[in-house]
Amino acid sequence: MPEPREIQQLKAQFEHELFESVLPFWERHSPDREHGGYFNHLDYDGVVYDPTKNVWLQARQVWLFSKLYNAVEQNPNWLELAKLGMDFLRKYAAAPTGRVYFSLTADGQPIYQQRKIFSECFYAMALAEYARAAANPKLLQEACRLFDLIWDMVLHPSKVGRPILEGTPRLQSLAAPMIVLNLIAEIAGDDLGQYREQAAFCIAQIEQHFVEGKVYELIGPKGRLVPELAQGRLLNPGHAIEAGWFLLEWAARLNDPALQTRSFEIIRQSYTAGWDQEQGGLFYFLDAGGFSPTQLEWDMKLWWPHCEAMVAFLMLYSLARERSDWDTFIEVKEYAFSHFSDSEHGEWFGYLNRRGEVTQRFKGGPYKGCFHVPRALWLCWRLLADLSNSPETGLP
Amino acid sequence: MPEPREIQQLKAQFEHELFESVLPFWERHSPDREHGGYFNHLDYDGVVYDPTKNVWLQARQVWLFSKLYNAVEQNPNWLELAKLGMDFLRKYAAAPTGRVYFSLTADGQPIYQQRKIFSECFYAMALAEYARAAANPKLLQEACRLFDLIWDMVLHPSKVGRPILEGTPRLQSLAAPMIVLNLIAEIAGDDLGQYREQAAFCIAQIEQHFVEGKVYELIGPKGRLVPELAQGRLLNPGHAIEAGWFLLEWAARLNDPALQTRSFEIIRQSYTAGWDQEQGGLFYFLDAGGFSPTQLEWDMKLWWPHCEAMVAFLMLYSLARERSDWDTFIEVKEYAFSHFSDSEHGEWFGYLNRRGEVTQRFKGGPYKGCFHVPRALWLCWRLLADLSNSPETGLP
Repeated sequence: MPEPREIQQLKAQFEHELFESVLPFWERHSPDREHGGYFNHLDYDGVVYDPTKNVWLQARQVWLFSKLYNAVEQNPNWLELAKLGMDFLRKYAAAPTGRVYFSLTADGQPIYQQRKIFSECFYAMALAEYARAAANPKLLQEACRLFDLIWDMVLHPSKVGRPILEGTPRLQSLAAPMIVLNLIAEIAGDDLGQYREQAAFCIAQIEQHFVEGKVYELIGPKGRLVPELAQGRLLNPGHAIEAGWFLLEWAARLNDPALQTRSFEIIRQSYTAGWDQEQGGLFYFLDAGGFSPTQLEWDMKLWWPHCEAMVAFLMLYSLARERSDWDTFIEVKEYAFSHFSDSEHGEWFGYLNRRGEVTQRFKGGPYKGCFHVPRALWLCWRLLADLSNSPETGLP
Repeated sequence: MPEPREIQQLKAQFEHELFESVLPFWERHSPDREHGGYFNHLDYDGVVYDPTKNVWLQARQVWLFSKLYNAVEQNPNWLELAKLGMDFLRKYAAAPTGRVYFSLTADGQPIYQQRKIFSECFYAMALAEYARAAANPKLLQEACRLFDLIWDMVLHPSKVGRPILEGTPRLQSLAAPMIVLNLIAEIAGDDLGQYREQAAFCIAQIEQHFVEGKVYELIGPKGRLVPELAQGRLLNPGHAIEAGWFLLEWAARLNDPALQTRSFEIIRQSYTAGWDQEQGGLFYFLDAGGFSPTQLEWDMKLWWPHCEAMVAFLMLYSLARERSDWDTFIEVKEYAFSHFSDSEHGEWFGYLNRRGEVTQRFKGGPYKGCFHVPRALWLCWRLLADLSNSPETGLP
């Protein structure tokens, strides 16, 4: 078992990384004081290299600062920053139809609306968490109304807007139930109430993706595998690991030990499948049949799978207290801090090639913002604090 | 100047590569004798790893075998192969609206329709070339009718189907006028006739992308650069080089020496910008402002830019007879043959990382089929034959 001193040192390291490197980067460089919202295309040193505002990232940053305000400390600067993004989104993010845009110009004009449900999900997540920070229950109601729209699209995928033709494979993605389940946790707060059934539906859907030790990114109707299609063989280990710790939290919440056991397996097996034995780091995509993934970036090492794996294995260790899970946490944490973290300008790089060399020098891009890194650092910091307070507690 | 013996040896090498390695791979592994059309997802050894049929690739393969039949030799096997794809496409590729699908199931059911014009373009190209091979002028008329639909979308981009919102930047892509110009050459054949004005329009559009020594992939209205957007700074050297040799052919056709001179510059400057001085090979994407491209695959080395560069520099050398162009042809040819060509199973790999290691082991994928490699080998083989027949001819 790790020494208390090791846990203390790690806690200090995560704390320093979060509060001295990562948050200051976004606090300093992202606010758009002219139009509101945040610049999310930030170069390694914080220079804005594109003014486009991506709604996923705007919303996630609102969520993050609201969450810190609610869970860590009622720091008025955090609330003010959250408000900057929330006001911008409330003004510009929603289309007249109620759907939510994917990207906006710096001054809020709509650029593009995706035929996916994720802009809606992240916007609703931001509304819910910010509603608590700002003590504004109306915004939580807004989030709930948006959730109803999202749920309707979950049940009727044709409403999302992408035409389904005769030959279009009816595939269910891991992402949809995962993100919606996460959203339910945010909206419902402590009282699951009316959302209990919907949460159970999402959990069951996610579990369908876990077949014979592998988490398939896309499955067919009724959980049937579709191994004849490249898409049907696609594995995304980081995504599976993230789903794993979402399920761990739900297993605790629902007091479901069987779900906990399956979540352990999902996390451990996805990590084993995804870890690059030669060069270290987690692959982005794999093909369950051993073919080359058609995604050109399959062998790159991205920041977020490593963030998710840190959280997952620390959570896992906190529950099961097995040395091998702790060792994996240390392995992925060492890889992440030594490869992604930038002590000079703050924040983390996001994209490495297979050998671990930085390929994209920016800290913020169309899909990387103020979210995965601070969320993971905060969660790990909290887990390490719990561990150092209760070194003996493990599985019941 | 290269020795006649060197030219002869190269000609033999290209001939061998085309007729003994590349074409046999597709002749052997791609035909779907059950449903018609071609399998285009072929692993390194020809195994089908996904039955999906991508219309771009189906159409380009029809074009390729028809072209070989028309230009090299009236080999009945080639015509039969072209017919296999043409019949499949005529049965299944067009939607009731007249638009053309992007992908089909093995038995021809529509999977997806892109909101772009390229499926229509490649299908029309296939129709035109096959019409000549099969001596079926009706199919050429079909191609002409499809061209009218395409041209309408070129003039009215909103008809392509992707919503244009208030903040959507009005960007003109290099790809559209390039592909349409290429299509005009295919449809018009020897007599430009009614297409003269449209060709001039496309050429003028392409030339707008060439600003101060760089070919921008996307430009704003009236040729204005949009350097504040990452998209507006995007360079795709292989694409620019391909555009360069298209323009070289048109300069000859239109007897336009000024266009020829600009094409020389486009090719040479795009190659210089795109060549990786450290590791060799052409980068896939660059950012004109020196930022990191947001495309994760920016530093990969893809087969097709190297194919295009071989053609462009050999064409350039044939016209200008400058040693440096010959040397560049040799440089890129050496890189391509030593990195992409697979003498064991035939055809070329398509995707390498920056260091030149194969990252995707397949020979055919959703965007790589029987097209760029054989087209480039055939064109170079022909150019080398011309060179060895008329070693003295250069610029007029």
